[in-house]
Order: sequence, then C-alpha cells, then structure tokens
Amino acid sequence: MVTARAYAADSATSPLVPTTIERREVGPRDVLIEIAFAGICHSDIHTIRGEWGTVPYPLTVGHEIVGIVAEVGSEVSAHAAGDRVGVGCLVNSCRSCANCLAGEEQYCLNGGVGTYGDVDRDGTITQGGYSSHVVVDEHFVVRVPDGLDLAAAAPLLCAGITTYSPLRHWKAGPGTRVAVIGLGGLGHMAVKLAASLGAEVTVLSQTLAKEDDGKRLGATAYYATSDPETFEKLVDSFDLIINTVSATLDATAYLSLLALDGTMVNLGAPPEPFAVPMFALAARRRSFSASGIGGIRETQEMLDYCAEHGIASDIEVISADQVNEAWERVLASDVRYRFVIDIATL
Amino acid sequence: MVTARAYAADSATSPLVPTTIERREVGPRDVLIEIAFAGICHSDIHTIRGEWGTVPYPLTVGHEIVGIVAEVGSEVSAHAAGDRVGVGCLVNSCRSCANCLAGEEQYCLNGGVGTYGDVDRDGTITQGGYSSHVVVDEHFVVRVPDGLDLAAAAPLLCAGITTYSPLRHWKAGPGTRVAVIGLGGLGHMAVKLAASLGAEVTVLSQTLAKEDDGKRLGATAYYATSDPETFEKLVDSFDLIINTVSATLDATAYLSLLALDGTMVNLGAPPEPFAVPMFALAARRRSFSASGIGGIRETQEMLDYCAEHGIASDIEVISADQVNEAWERVLASDVRYRFVIDIATL
Repeated sequence: MVTARAYAADSATSPLVPTTIERREVGPRDVLIEIAFAGICHSDIHTIRGEWGTVPYPLTVGHEIVGIVAEVGSEVSAHAAGDRVGVGCLVNSCRSCANCLAGEEQYCLNGGVGTYGDVDRDGTITQGGYSSHVVVDEHFVVRVPDGLDLAAAAPLLCAGITTYSPLRHWKAGPGTRVAVIGLGGLGHMAVKLAASLGAEVTVLSQTLAKEDDGKRLGATAYYATSDPETFEKLVDSFDLIINTVSATLDATAYLSLLALDGTMVNLGAPPEPFAVPMFALAARRRSFSASGIGGIRETQEMLDYCAEHGIASDIEVISADQVNEAWERVLASDVRYRFVIDIATL
Repeated sequence: MVTARAYAADSATSPLVPTTIERREVGPRDVLIEIAFAGICHSDIHTIRGEWGTVPYPLTVGHEIVGIVAEVGSEVSAHAAGDRVGVGCLVNSCRSCANCLAGEEQYCLNGGVGTYGDVDRDGTITQGGYSSHVVVDEHFVVRVPDGLDLAAAAPLLCAGITTYSPLRHWKAGPGTRVAVIGLGGLGHMAVKLAASLGAEVTVLSQTLAKEDDGKRLGATAYYATSDPETFEKLVDSFDLIINTVSATLDATAYLSLLALDGTMVNLGAPPEPFAVPMFALAARRRSFSASGIGGIRETQEMLDYCAEHGIASDIEVISADQVNEAWERVLASDVRYRFVIDIATL
C-alpha cells in the first residue's frame, strides 16, 4: 500500500481537512503518480455536498490531475518514471464493450469507474486528486506534452476535454458559428478551443461583466442573456451552441438561436429535465444533445492539440489550506477561470 | 379564375360538405392540375378541428395531391399538359433565403406557404387537395414517375417525404439499426423506406396487433411498448429512432434505447413539450431532434427512389362521400395505412 497525504470531507456539510489515504500497491499495469497540481471542478463540490447522490465519506475529490510518474508496474509500456502525466475523470472501464473498443470509455456500457467516489474493480472506493499520490492503470494515464505548463494543464483533464470533445464531434471549424453559454471554467475553455479551431465564437452570458475577457479569449461577439433583445437579434444564428451552465434553461429560447441543422449540446447536469417543444426543433431540424468528457485517446489528442496551439486554462494557483475558501469562491463564480491546488503545499 | 369542386368544412365541428372554390388564374409560372387522388393525413383533421391554431373557414384541406397537368403558364418549362404530377405540403416559399437556396424550402426563414389554410403571397387563403383542381407554382410541383400507381403515390407527398427525409439525413442504411415508433400512415412508410435503404428495422407499437403487417413491410423485429420488458430488453439498441406518434412520450424511456451517438427524430407535433433529462442524453451522447417534410428537390428524389424500388403507400381508396367516415376511422387508427380519396367521385 502507498500512504498518500490528502484533503477529504467527512460529510456533506464538513470542510475539507488534511488526512492520509491508502493507495493500492502498484500492480503490473499500474502507474504511481506524484501529483503536482489538481484543478477544482464544480463537480467536486456537487459530489461532496451530496447533490448528485449518495457519497461514501470520507472522500477525497479532484479529477483534474497532473503530476510526475514515480513508479510503473512491470508490464507498463506507455509511461516511465519521470514522465509528466495527467489523469481525468475516469480511472477504469470494462475495456471490452463496443464503446470502450471504439475508444469512448466515457460511455462504457458496463459503467466506467470515476476518479473519485466510485467503486473500483477491486471493490475499493476511488479517491481523487486533492492528494499527494495516486495509482492508476496505465490505460487511463495520459502524457502532458512538454510545451504545456503543468499547473495550467490540470484543468484540461476535465474542463478541456469536456469542451474539446463536443467541438470536434460536431465539427466546429472555419465557417461554423459557435455560441458558448456561460463563461466559467468550461466556458472559457470552450471559447479558446472553438476560436482556435477556426470557428466564429459568440459568448452568451448573463451580463456583460466578462465581455473583455471573452473577447481576449477569442470570442468575436458577446451578448447578455438577461437582455430579451439578445434572443430576438440572434434568432437562426448558430450552428452549434455549447451550453456550459449547470441549470435548467429555457430550451425554446436557446433553440430558436440555432440555424438549420444546428445542435445545442449541454455539458452541465442539472437535476431537472429541460422542457423541449417539438416546434422549436422541427422548425429548423434542430437537435438537442449532451456530451460527457471524452475518451482516453481523445484526451491525449486534446492535450497534444493544446500544446501545439499554446492553449491552457486561465488559472489561479492556491495552496492546499485555501481549498475551502476557493470552493466558496467557485460557488460565487468568483474565479477566472479555474483554481488549481499546488499539491506541494499539502 | 378556375372554379373547382371541393369538400370543405365551415367550422371546427362541422362535417366536410361538397362546395366549389375559386382557384387563381394560371399565371406565367403556374401549373393547373386536374387532381386525381388526395390522401387523408391526420394533419387535415387536426387543422380543421382547430387543434393547431386559428382556421380560416370555410377550408378545404389535403396536402397529398396527385393528378394530371391540365394547363401550364407561358414560362413553365418543367411540366407540360398531360404530365403526372404531385403537390405536397408546401405551395410557396421566399426562394431567396439561405434555406430555400439550399433546397430546404420547408425551413424557409421567411415562412413557407402551406398547401391549405395559409396566406399565399397574393394574400389569398390557400385551399387543399380535396378538390378537383389546383393551381400551383411550377417550383412546387413534382413529377410522379410512370412506375408509380397514381393513387398509391398520393401519400408519398406527405407521409413518404416526411419519413424519407430524416432517414436520408441521419443516414439510415446497411449497418444501421432503425426503430420506428407507431405503425400508421407515417410509420408504415418509415418501415418500408428504412428497410429498402438496407437498415435493420424494428417496430415499436403499443401492441403486437399489427406485427404481421410490420414484418411484411420490412421490419425484422416488432415489440409492444405496453410491455415494460421491451424497454429493458432494447436498451442501447438503436442508431436512429423515428417517432411517428403525435403524442408526448416518455423521452427518458425511449432515449435509453439509443446506442452511442444515436438520435431520436420526432415527426409528430404534440402540443406539450417533452421532458428531456440531461443524463439520458449525456450517458451516450444521444440527440433528440425533429424533422418536417422535406424540400422540393428531395421530394422529387424520394418519388424517383420509390418508383425505382417499387415502393408506395398501402392504401384504401374511398369515394368523396366517404370522407367524414374515413376521418373517424383515422382517429380510431382503423386504416391500413392511408385513405386516398378518388377525386373523380367528387
């Protein structure tokens, strides 16, 4: 067993506190990673606070993990000690179903294993990246290219791939008009990536408060959704809407902004369903969809793409003892655009 | 003016009665059609009964029209007297917007003109095909190939194109698994066309009453949706679901039947929105969409395809004085699978 330092919560209402957790022995196909940085994702907070279901406390969260390989198992070929690597939201899947074989492990028909709070194949509960070390099967470990700053790369493992995957799947590129709803952790990555891919990018945010940022990140237009005129002005305007907001929106209003054959892709997971009227879809053969992270192969592709194009997350690095305060600031949308914990301070 | 015999309703609650209506003079680009057969679509009933909005009574409905060209305007080049032709749900559109220029007149950004109950560009109210004659701009008149029986071709102008278009758009063909919800006028065409295109076709119907028919039409499997086991058994099974039912269904249950990247396309227009939960979409990157008829170019392509592959509607030909009784039978789902009015009896 490997004893790791970690921050964990004991209940839905307790703060995160320093503790130690046990990681499994490094098996033949395992990689032991000394974690350098862990990003703070809103999902971490939803999970710990019990908003997404029952939680096996005590729990350490964090699924935007980067670090250095400390040790590899005897059969590991893809990684070696000293490598810069990352781990995202998945640490296992069945690897034999059609979706896994297609490289889409996030849609594993037998259920993938999440990086924290999930039951691993050996029956243990997975523990996340707010921790000094983690042991992960090599298949779920990706390389962080040299060109990427390690801290700024951490959020790519969730916010990056979650936006990159639908942008590629729905073919954002030159000639496509992409709207991004919400300019937070996911939204700011969606804007950077869509602009980099050559799409014409518009931000739809509640207010114009972050307009300068949005344009700096690559958007050519920025509208306030609190202004009803926005919806009149932008009718039939977009080929793809990437919705990064985790709340149930007015589907009719947003769908009306899609041009013929346009798709609204939802990345958030609000508990209430959307009310989707047929006429809003049928009037322009519009589609309403949702996407979750990306497969391992595509996560590697995204990291390579980001290194090549000089893209990473805009981050604020914090020390471990600031994590509870940082969570409150995430809830208040007071971060531009991602907190990253410096695990050396843990 | 051309005086035409017709059946019309004077109110939402009156029966259809014989009358005469005026058609406009044949303009330079118009085609005067002597109607031979008109299909009965459920939309005709919804419209007359005021279920889809205000109706300009008296109104003649019918948008599955086939007949023989009686006269053409001086500038008409595509059609000539004596030609077998058809008219579907659209008789005009702006023809200058991006969607019209793309041949998708059904999604005209300035609003297409429906075959009945709509305001035409000259300010008159359009009147449908339960009538002896109609005058239509040549662009909205399609050729009925010789190989097609004229009566059985009538329903292709709505039920045919409404199912053909999404099957082609979402690439139904060899290797794709298509489910068709509902085996009525649209459903039986969806089964025939999807099977002809090479897809593996499953019918999802409330009961197994029409199973023999479904298999004769080309389905290889047939399930009752009243049996909860159907939804357990078929989870993750389809690439495309064509929903021909005009009622608000349990989106969660049907979406769960889609495999990775599958799409549920709705062709009906129930007044209530569907409740679409994010998890049902995000779990397999599923899409929820809707489609309306098809463009004029694609309608011609569909008729040519049907002639080439020996496909038409299964019909019951009635005389004009049976139309009110036929409507009641449509409402009771007592038709296999489309009533067609023999306009010679009008």
